[in-house]
Amino acid sequence: MRATLIYGAGDVRVENVPDPKPAEPTDAIVRVLRACICGSDLWPYGSRPATEKGDRIGHEFLGVVEDLGSEVSGLAPGDVVVAPFAYADNTCEYCRAGLHTSCPHGGFFGAGGVDGGQGEAVRVPFAQGTLVKLPVGEDDALLPSLVTLSDVFPTGHHCAVTAGVGPGSVVTVIGDGAVGLSAVLAAKRLGAERIILMGRHADRTSLGREFGATDVVAERGDEGIARVRELTGGFGTPAVLECVGTLTTLETALAVVRDGGTVSRVGAPQYAEVPFGFPAFGRNITLTGGIAPVRAYLEELLPDVLDGVVEPGRVFDRTVGLADVPDGYRAMAAREALKVLVRP
Amino acid sequence: MRATLIYGAGDVRVENVPDPKPAEPTDAIVRVLRACICGSDLWPYGSRPATEKGDRIGHEFLGVVEDLGSEVSGLAPGDVVVAPFAYADNTCEYCRAGLHTSCPHGGFFGAGGVDGGQGEAVRVPFAQGTLVKLPVGEDDALLPSLVTLSDVFPTGHHCAVTAGVGPGSVVTVIGDGAVGLSAVLAAKRLGAERIILMGRHADRTSLGREFGATDVVAERGDEGIARVRELTGGFGTPAVLECVGTLTTLETALAVVRDGGTVSRVGAPQYAEVPFGFPAFGRNITLTGGIAPVRAYLEELLPDVLDGVVEPGRVFDRTVGLADVPDGYRAMAAREALKVLVRP
Repeated sequence: MRATLIYGAGDVRVENVPDPKPAEPTDAIVRVLRACICGSDLWPYGSRPATEKGDRIGHEFLGVVEDLGSEVSGLAPGDVVVAPFAYADNTCEYCRAGLHTSCPHGGFFGAGGVDGGQGEAVRVPFAQGTLVKLPVGEDDALLPSLVTLSDVFPTGHHCAVTAGVGPGSVVTVIGDGAVGLSAVLAAKRLGAERIILMGRHADRTSLGREFGATDVVAERGDEGIARVRELTGGFGTPAVLECVGTLTTLETALAVVRDGGTVSRVGAPQYAEVPFGFPAFGRNITLTGGIAPVRAYLEELLPDVLDGVVEPGRVFDRTVGLADVPDGYRAMAAREALKVLVRP
Repeated sequence: MRATLIYGAGDVRVENVPDPKPAEPTDAIVRVLRACICGSDLWPYGSRPATEKGDRIGHEFLGVVEDLGSEVSGLAPGDVVVAPFAYADNTCEYCRAGLHTSCPHGGFFGAGGVDGGQGEAVRVPFAQGTLVKLPVGEDDALLPSLVTLSDVFPTGHHCAVTAGVGPGSVVTVIGDGAVGLSAVLAAKRLGAERIILMGRHADRTSLGREFGATDVVAERGDEGIARVRELTGGFGTPAVLECVGTLTTLETALAVVRDGGTVSRVGAPQYAEVPFGFPAFGRNITLTGGIAPVRAYLEELLPDVLDGVVEPGRVFDRTVGLADVPDGYRAMAAREALKVLVRP
């Protein structure tokens, strides 16, 4: 079958790989119907050292169950399923606490030798705990929104939840990428009253407004910080959703959060140290968030996607076949595309 | 009158200073009945550059109202009152949100030219918002416990509250100083079921056990971390109360917190940067806490102190008169005394 491999920075190829087969009795084989390119795929695309052997890449996908190991129950061949980007047993103490990303049996698609999602099929470990059955057919119009349930929409949701967003909240969202826009949508869905979106790409922030942003701040750095403070009576906002992951955006988050407020981060941190000494202490700032335990949120989010209450799939502005995945990476890295849907 | 001044590291003196008088119509003059030396006073005592002119020091006190500015209502001369270590107007948006330490009219005793508490009397700014009347006489046996309401007990309480401690919680408390022991007491009061106290001074940890600690870990560093993990099935605890303020103790906190858990800190940070990059992100750790908005907690804590439900004053193991305050500093810095009560 065909699948995407990354060989180094800027070097993504679609090649023949062996067809996946169940290796463990807890595995399933899923034929991919839709996959996506994630903003976090752009980090290795930007900096991975070149190697002779490529690695499978991609961690967002949904598809059809083709084969099942002997210990998987509750799923049948032909089922349409979505996979959270982290597989997990869904039975351990962490999973039961809703923290599937810390499951000791878990891991990530497209990492550590596990199949990536940007291919024709995927071997899914701990399939029974990982996969969620979708009550749709193989070419349902909702598939784009449904595939966002593998990562980007629940990641935005996790950011909003951990920041304590609820009815009446006043929120700043930093970043107009697909995660930032998903965070806007999630905050709106949770009842936020005012959502200030910091982003400078007009086409993206206009989708952000449709998702629920009440204000857009296009300025960056000190100017952007001053603008958010101006919009909030000088205080900043009690919740800040940091959806990029750089030190600069984290510093912006700490500068626009209100004293006593919460910064939640879901962009993979491109920093090791956080400036969080006496000033943040004196202001009683909370720093939270982290990698989203997507599986924990699917029962809550799926009905609203199926009912069309939210349309997170609107973040896709380009669709490619498998052969064009490398061009999808190029387009996302060049900011030509917001988020690329892959249709193998 | 006599008051304590600090001139440099290790150089604390009791000297004559002008008697305080109301300078603003919102001021009160309080004659001090009890004051204390705070662990945070030991930071300047350890490192303040020497100067020719001394600064008033001390921020924990209770006393008797002696004089009032014309705009102060609700208080009368003769009232016994406690002062939170931060004065505040108690009417602004931050104060109404319970964050008196961010009050734009507020500040700290013994800082920025405002009187310190380790003296015979104190000019209290924004007295009406700051002082809380105590229904006791001038020599009540409860005064030691009541003066802890100015800082150390509500600081421990703030640490427990921001860490989300409640009925059934499993908690690690780092530090067997007066703040750590107060955090144990506060966690127990809030219903924590298991409280692991990390501290190596047997006399202090035995008081910690009386306050509610169920386990004591005397080991430090990697050994201490391993011991807490061993006590918790390998997981660590969902809440960690960091009551020291050094980078080392913060690192310990991050190492003993369970994935998905919360580290709260109330020790004044002796660091500018926190190691809080991808590992903490991947584990979904929350970092919270900060300088305690003591005033916000007094209505809740005062009745339990008056009723003897909690006895936070047990942290005092030495009482000195004003003339012996320098020796009190020496004794606390040398770890001869846990916490020193001052009786002017």
